[in-house]
Amino acid sequence: MTEQKQPDARCFDIRPGEIATTLPETTDAGIYFIGRIRTPWQKREDCPRNARESSEVCTIEVDDRYAQALSGVATCTHLLVLYWMHQARRDLVIQVPRHYGEPRGTFALRSPVRPNPIAASVVRLEAIAGTRLRVVGLDCLDGTPLLDIKPYFSSTDAVPDAVVGWHAARKG
Amino acid sequence: MTEQKQPDARCFDIRPGEIATTLPETTDAGIYFIGRIRTPWQKREDCPRNARESSEVCTIEVDDRYAQALSGVATCTHLLVLYWMHQARRDLVIQVPRHYGEPRGTFALRSPVRPNPIAASVVRLEAIAGTRLRVVGLDCLDGTPLLDIKPYFSSTDAVPDAVVGWHAARKG
Repeated sequence: MTEQKQPDARCFDIRPGEIATTLPETTDAGIYFIGRIRTPWQKREDCPRNARESSEVCTIEVDDRYAQALSGVATCTHLLVLYWMHQARRDLVIQVPRHYGEPRGTFALRSPVRPNPIAASVVRLEAIAGTRLRVVGLDCLDGTPLLDIKPYFSSTDAVPDAVVGWHAARKG
Repeated sequence: MTEQKQPDARCFDIRPGEIATTLPETTDAGIYFIGRIRTPWQKREDCPRNARESSEVCTIEVDDRYAQALSGVATCTHLLVLYWMHQARRDLVIQVPRHYGEPRGTFALRSPVRPNPIAASVVRLEAIAGTRLRVVGLDCLDGTPLLDIKPYFSSTDAVPDAVVGWHAARKG
């Protein structure tokens, strides 16, 4: 365990209206970083606000020990990529995202700030060469640790008519 | 860290054609179990083969310390739920799923057996009462540890025309 309570991960101040909880003393399970994601963005403020705002091709580098696990992945048009948002604090239950300006629960947001900072992004697979995947649809920092790659099944993963009510109400 | 190398999690033998890798000596980050999922299924063989095969309403129980993080979730029709498949071994890179019968890479499969056994399931939200969510779309064991709840945004999460080539070829 190299990461448990990172003092330097708490560098983001609480905004007015935000509420922190007390996290448990210990974690319950360990995860492996299985590779890294290479993107053009070195700082948080450079990242696109969401993945649909970018058509950048990013590179997923999978560690050699998992090379064989990529067998068959090339037949997928889209993948579900899980990664670790290593710079985010983990204790906020109510957040006030800058671009919305109103308080909302962490589980109603896709913010990197959450008890387990695991992101899930759907990407379009452009190419695979060895253990490097070229994909479109990521918005994370360069060097972000990779956790998992899954085939995206439209039969279970795609719900085109899903609605996030609070978000739809903002646009209406 | 209560879980690192679980001898009892290795109870599933390798099938002919399956290949294991050597996992790193230590994990890289820790995760919190933030609640539990209650389902009708007590044994692996009782679980539906995939979530679309079941219309069972399951219950997600979120720990009290995260209660406020649910604010706003009730406005969502669908959620992306992440959970920890705690009974799965983690070292297979090539697997031969029983119902397919041919070897394929772990990252081309949705099998629970993977370096980080994190599942991602899209569920339909039926109701919330306090810290209990009633949802449809899960296929996991009763007592499965919860990792995260995210709002499902069709704009970024839904790709209806995505294809998993190896799977489509089987049906064709």
